[in-house]
Amino acid sequence: MTSPSTPASTPVPTSIPAPIPAPIPTRDPLSAATSLAAPRTVDAVVIGLGPGGEDVAARLARGGWSVLAVDEHLVGGECPYYGCIPSKMMLHESRRADASWARVAQRIREEATDQWDDRVAVERLLGTGADFVHGRAEIEGGPAAAPVSEGTRVTVTPNDGGAAQTWTARRAVVLNTGSESVRIPVRGLPEAVTWTHRDVVTAETLPDSLAIVGGGPVGCELAQALAGFGVRVSLLVRGDRLLSGETPEAGELVAERFRAEGIDVRTGTEIRDVQAGEASRYETSHGIPASAGPVDLELTTGDRITVDRVLLATGRAPRDPVEVDDWSRVLDGAATEGGQPVRGRYAIGDMTGAGPFTHTSMAQAAVVADQLLAGASPHPLPRQAVPRVTYTDPEVAAVGLSEGQARKAAEQQGRDASEVHVARVDLGASSRGWIDEVRGHLTLVARAEGTAEEKGTGARGGVLVGAAVVGPHAGEILGALTVAVHARVPLAELVRIPWAYPTLHRSIGDAIAQFGSEVIGAASAAGPAS
Amino acid sequence: MTSPSTPASTPVPTSIPAPIPAPIPTRDPLSAATSLAAPRTVDAVVIGLGPGGEDVAARLARGGWSVLAVDEHLVGGECPYYGCIPSKMMLHESRRADASWARVAQRIREEATDQWDDRVAVERLLGTGADFVHGRAEIEGGPAAAPVSEGTRVTVTPNDGGAAQTWTARRAVVLNTGSESVRIPVRGLPEAVTWTHRDVVTAETLPDSLAIVGGGPVGCELAQALAGFGVRVSLLVRGDRLLSGETPEAGELVAERFRAEGIDVRTGTEIRDVQAGEASRYETSHGIPASAGPVDLELTTGDRITVDRVLLATGRAPRDPVEVDDWSRVLDGAATEGGQPVRGRYAIGDMTGAGPFTHTSMAQAAVVADQLLAGASPHPLPRQAVPRVTYTDPEVAAVGLSEGQARKAAEQQGRDASEVHVARVDLGASSRGWIDEVRGHLTLVARAEGTAEEKGTGARGGVLVGAAVVGPHAGEILGALTVAVHARVPLAELVRIPWAYPTLHRSIGDAIAQFGSEVIGAASAAGPAS
Repeated sequence: MTSPSTPASTPVPTSIPAPIPAPIPTRDPLSAATSLAAPRTVDAVVIGLGPGGEDVAARLARGGWSVLAVDEHLVGGECPYYGCIPSKMMLHESRRADASWARVAQRIREEATDQWDDRVAVERLLGTGADFVHGRAEIEGGPAAAPVSEGTRVTVTPNDGGAAQTWTARRAVVLNTGSESVRIPVRGLPEAVTWTHRDVVTAETLPDSLAIVGGGPVGCELAQALAGFGVRVSLLVRGDRLLSGETPEAGELVAERFRAEGIDVRTGTEIRDVQAGEASRYETSHGIPASAGPVDLELTTGDRITVDRVLLATGRAPRDPVEVDDWSRVLDGAATEGGQPVRGRYAIGDMTGAGPFTHTSMAQAAVVADQLLAGASPHPLPRQAVPRVTYTDPEVAAVGLSEGQARKAAEQQGRDASEVHVARVDLGASSRGWIDEVRGHLTLVARAEGTAEEKGTGARGGVLVGAAVVGPHAGEILGALTVAVHARVPLAELVRIPWAYPTLHRSIGDAIAQFGSEVIGAASAAGPAS
Repeated sequence: MTSPSTPASTPVPTSIPAPIPAPIPTRDPLSAATSLAAPRTVDAVVIGLGPGGEDVAARLARGGWSVLAVDEHLVGGECPYYGCIPSKMMLHESRRADASWARVAQRIREEATDQWDDRVAVERLLGTGADFVHGRAEIEGGPAAAPVSEGTRVTVTPNDGGAAQTWTARRAVVLNTGSESVRIPVRGLPEAVTWTHRDVVTAETLPDSLAIVGGGPVGCELAQALAGFGVRVSLLVRGDRLLSGETPEAGELVAERFRAEGIDVRTGTEIRDVQAGEASRYETSHGIPASAGPVDLELTTGDRITVDRVLLATGRAPRDPVEVDDWSRVLDGAATEGGQPVRGRYAIGDMTGAGPFTHTSMAQAAVVADQLLAGASPHPLPRQAVPRVTYTDPEVAAVGLSEGQARKAAEQQGRDASEVHVARVDLGASSRGWIDEVRGHLTLVARAEGTAEEKGTGARGGVLVGAAVVGPHAGEILGALTVAVHARVPLAELVRIPWAYPTLHRSIGDAIAQFGSEVIGAASAAGPAS
């Protein structure tokens, strides 16, 4: 991983996690923070200002806490600058009849990222009362060190070359240091010829041809978007299907659509060898390692393909992985010894492994802020009800547990794995699916018996613990399933819902009916909605 | 209303409710029914075989009851032959780049309606064990007559000219006689120049221009569909906006889109006078009253427009309106006298006024069948949580109560109308809305305090009692809101849901946050989802 010396006026990143020199905000945040508390003591230090970090810093500051927020990179994080937002803009543009890369590249640059300048985000954060430093933060003794009763010391080294300063977080440190792209080692594949998603997002022009390595959500979304702009895309997948974390139906349907759109989908394939000519290795005027003209890839299947670029979409891994409990408290050494987690150390976002999604990080931020401000544990993170969507066409959406996960969870809880039941419906066989010539599936995972707690609330019978949808608008159909799984709505309630006809989500009712009365159980004694 | 003498081989209807001569099914159902019970006594008679009627007949027959089902028209009802299915097929086709009326007209004829032949539906019904007569049914003494203890006598007159026979329904009569198009009187507007939606569905060719009278769901869907096939459409609306039963935002947004698509939307307008030349009045070779353009319409605004056809989409009214309780039992004279409903008389579908939707009728069918077969009242119809969708682009969807309805309901229940709170979000201001350049709104109606019953189940704080969405995929977004309203999921639960980012339905979370903690209330003490 290189950290090129990029002039501050051209903050174009080359790889993750190269630090991005950021402009100095109009208000000097470090000075402000210094003046706030002479001995450099604050209630909380928040490290890493991706969506959840920014949110928790703002919530704490608005709640009256003194907060120091620190990020080496852009305030707002991966999602708005390189992730969700630009990728969905690409997909949206690529589906227009007159799809234009120049137009979406300009939109990403000007509308979405302000030329990858976080000045507005920094101002927004300062406006909450939090203080902020663009720089590096190190916790004394490491992320899993001293308990908060003594105060946690954090050393902050500003990006602008100023002197490092040590701060004390009186009440809490919230870690949100995120994840970074995993680069699989490929023999003969020099960094100079590879891209990550960041290079696509910042590209002014596209290559004629591209090999994408990795068939996960990022690889699939970029494959379809770029193919929509006329790029000849080869999608190289090690496993036997796309989107291996989702239902088999999803991967098959997406692959079929991709092939119909001209994408060269190859499963069970890795790059065995690479031949890149000298012409393929150079740096742009912005100092970006890049490639021009073709590289030859030899695949493990023996096939050879020639492409202009290789894009690595081989997943992301936490920079500083930690374990947290249901309240996002870090389960560190102190916790293990005392049997109680250390109350002053929290982590949210990708580093917790709870799901590398903006909405997970935001939900954890709310949990942490509520807990810190209220001094209580009002609600835990519903880890097993986290939804996710891949925004390909067809969309692929899921919430909660898969069948296998549900069986494993039942066993771990000393319950009978046979309590887990699965129902599947073909969306194309529904009225709307038939009318709109839809291809897709909906899968529900139910547990036949309520927990003791559920029984105590009067609910009896089964509940949904997971669901998956592949098809048009699957991400929106997922909303109903997210409510059902999250709020543990009894199947006996769900089965009575007069789902609007002819929507696609009406298939949820057909799937629930498959479970039969033994799984659905008796209705609660509730009267009519009033 | 005319009932043209149409040969049985061309069962094309001209108006509602002209009887449709139907082919004789391969199994003679009347003979079968006769053989079933010599004194012509059955457990139940089901009159009217729209979706709910067919469903309840099938459920009862599969549950072991002897059932006689009677319908003058097509088994399956309005929805598959003239309503939901063909209209959504038109909309689907009209949105294709190469939209072709010939193609969708053929699809409606061959795939959807089997040339308006219900042979397959009749076979399906007979396959459940029910018996069936294509004919007219009259209840002795009228729909609100004798209690079932004496048995309800029903006289059935077959369409095929056979003799009328009298049957006794031992346990129940289920009425499902549906609704019919309301034709507003227009001075000088001869029936010969008017169409209803049935004429559109059965048309082999389209007129060049069309005035649609009525801006409700049917008028709006047909306006957009036909404009998509190149018809010059004028949409004449008496009130001040389209879709007057929905939020103002919905009507405005749909009108704006319609105008952008070239539809001539005129509000505050009625037809004052009509000039139709002789050429405009003739019958087709199938005996269909039709017109060959043009007719001149003088509007109440003083404007004049010339069109080839006038389509009346001025609403539907129940053929035999009845009132039912929450279990779909008919509230007839006997009920009023005794303070108890008559157990043997049920009504479902459009005639009950609970919402003229296929899904309402189906839900009522399930309620009735469960009650009759189980001999109990397992669950009432959730009348106030019925969803509805208009499938225009943008879609318009709603569930439960509007703000006004919620206030009125609170007052009627002796509660404080100030308990009702409303939150609105602009879908275009959400991340996905901004990315996809969406225009739309989401409106939530909440009641701040749970009912005593809800408090008893441990839920505290507010619940959603209604919601409305206008925008892309609004009908699918509605799924989440339907679960929330129907199952009375506490706002305190909903506010914690980590809605998938960046979906459109994630705006539900933003709207709920607007209510504030006073309305949302405390979370229940539930632990983590397990």
